[in-house]
Amino acid sequence: MPQRIPAAAGDPQDAIETPALVVDLDAFEANLDAMAAAVAAAGLRLRPHAKSHKCPAIAHAQIARGAVGICCQKTDEALAFVAAGVRDVLLTNEVVDPRKLARLAAGAREARIGLLFDDATAARTASAAAAAAGATLDAYVEIDVGAGRCGVLPQRAGELAAILAALPGLRFAGLHCYHGGAQHLRTPAGREAAIAGARERVLAARREVERAGLEVAIVTGAGTGTWPLELASGVWNELQPGSYAFMDADYGRNEPAERDLRFRHSLFAIASVMSVPAPERAVCDAGLKAFSFDSGLPLVHGREGLNYAKASDEHGVLAVAPGAKPLAPGDRVWLVPGHCDPTVNLYDWIVGVRGGRVECVWPVSARGALG
Amino acid sequence: MPQRIPAAAGDPQDAIETPALVVDLDAFEANLDAMAAAVAAAGLRLRPHAKSHKCPAIAHAQIARGAVGICCQKTDEALAFVAAGVRDVLLTNEVVDPRKLARLAAGAREARIGLLFDDATAARTASAAAAAAGATLDAYVEIDVGAGRCGVLPQRAGELAAILAALPGLRFAGLHCYHGGAQHLRTPAGREAAIAGARERVLAARREVERAGLEVAIVTGAGTGTWPLELASGVWNELQPGSYAFMDADYGRNEPAERDLRFRHSLFAIASVMSVPAPERAVCDAGLKAFSFDSGLPLVHGREGLNYAKASDEHGVLAVAPGAKPLAPGDRVWLVPGHCDPTVNLYDWIVGVRGGRVECVWPVSARGALG
Repeated sequence: MPQRIPAAAGDPQDAIETPALVVDLDAFEANLDAMAAAVAAAGLRLRPHAKSHKCPAIAHAQIARGAVGICCQKTDEALAFVAAGVRDVLLTNEVVDPRKLARLAAGAREARIGLLFDDATAARTASAAAAAAGATLDAYVEIDVGAGRCGVLPQRAGELAAILAALPGLRFAGLHCYHGGAQHLRTPAGREAAIAGARERVLAARREVERAGLEVAIVTGAGTGTWPLELASGVWNELQPGSYAFMDADYGRNEPAERDLRFRHSLFAIASVMSVPAPERAVCDAGLKAFSFDSGLPLVHGREGLNYAKASDEHGVLAVAPGAKPLAPGDRVWLVPGHCDPTVNLYDWIVGVRGGRVECVWPVSARGALG
Repeated sequence: MPQRIPAAAGDPQDAIETPALVVDLDAFEANLDAMAAAVAAAGLRLRPHAKSHKCPAIAHAQIARGAVGICCQKTDEALAFVAAGVRDVLLTNEVVDPRKLARLAAGAREARIGLLFDDATAARTASAAAAAAGATLDAYVEIDVGAGRCGVLPQRAGELAAILAALPGLRFAGLHCYHGGAQHLRTPAGREAAIAGARERVLAARREVERAGLEVAIVTGAGTGTWPLELASGVWNELQPGSYAFMDADYGRNEPAERDLRFRHSLFAIASVMSVPAPERAVCDAGLKAFSFDSGLPLVHGREGLNYAKASDEHGVLAVAPGAKPLAPGDRVWLVPGHCDPTVNLYDWIVGVRGGRVECVWPVSARGALG
């Protein structure tokens, strides 16, 4: 059962039923425009990560601004975007289940679909699925550029690229080089050092692939925390930031470098106060099921002396500082999620607002697409 | 778009597509039976909290074992259970939005529906909604028995009960006395002290209500961490545990008192390994969107030398101890969620397994019912 649609176009924003996930369209579009302009000015490809928004309307807005396509993280997520008309999807993950590979291969008859490999067995399974579907999958070697998650070390890149290039149904497309561990390093110097190290690994991997007689057409990676570094590196030619469209509290804690673009918080959950048991404490209707808390508590937006102090399943306790404007039941609070990606995944609808009114309600079509 | 159904009845359990939420039906039914027997033996009412499972099939299994009905936490959650045929729902929360109150009042024409109050204004709004619908809502005064969340202090209970009793469309039903802060106190002594304090507050509130000339028919509360204490208190006559049906890693960290029932872990998320970049590290397909991490990491079940070490959005990094059985892509891992309630809320389906086979697939009908 999908969630109740919390508002309709034309409603005043104060009529949105809470909790609801809301995008400030002015801030959101400014973020999209700024990233598109910066990546275009550098002559690089932008392929925003759709795991942050899971929303075809947003993917189409990014593509309309020049993005070559999107990234996804899961099979069913990718297919939700293909079903919504997105024609170029890179699944930035390994897939080993033959049933999922068969679904991806079927999708590849309608859209360009790529995925990652760090293992020859998975490549052979994917090749068989693509051949059976009469389709071609773009195949990238994932390089572990420092995050210590998936991926091969640079010295194995040539060998695996040669396997991908030789398998029917696969087209060796390039290297996936994403440093997840660098995105939330707080200082510019920390991020610079991490991406400098990643760059060395990319160069080493590229040498190995070229030594195997193959061209590296695409080096893809980067996130909202580090993309200016990959952009300036001379090595990456496709960038994958996702959170920049929304920003969140955790990315807001990164200290920007002087030259960095400043993205605006455009994503909020609106909550309503339902209990004010004491002047210093109010309780709102958004808790552990309205936000992901993996990267900290939500931040109260645009209101002084109010902090989101504690969550339980369906309650958020707001601490009201002495002298702050008192809260009453029914009052509404705008909250910036700690981590946008898993928070968006809790909602079926994103309400777009502008000038105090609801302008659109977008389905989060890939919400829950875990498989 | 709902999640893909991960399995069908009759499938071998190793064919379930991952990530999937799975219930071991033997363990689950043993948990349900044990709680039902203990509460019945004490002559009390059991009203399990359905915020843990959001699943009408489970509610009906609890009611079939003698539960008087269920608890819910949100309006749309309550109405999902009413739509599925549950005829007695207590919404253990304050509701102040007139639209939600109107929906609850409409539901109260089909089912007994109760809710909580800690404020006279909300009571008047609810009264108007009930009167407009030609229905009656059960009205409970919520007492803050120590958790410092919602609720009035005991000295205000009589005054508020009198207001509820006098309002048309409301029926004063009793006191809601739940100590959320006590559930995860790790030692039996800690929990005993907290519930002893709560008991004093309940007695004080009851005196105030009786002084106002009203009878306290129901004193309802308790959770999986403390229910044996409320059961033995002589004060509570209705118990609301929810997590006992599943258990989770966080409740597993409570040190039980000697007399406490031991509930079994019955809820798991099954994940698949999709990458083994190094002997000491494997990466599975269940991360921040497959579990709620508010109460810690999931625990690997039934496999030595393997730990879920780190999560990102769609990856879980498993640490493989030296000497442990190595993992390969495609291997499956059973994981006990850190916190069951918000984890269940990430899934549209619960797969019931017994003897190595899928026996049923239950819709999580109130998944995402935030409003």
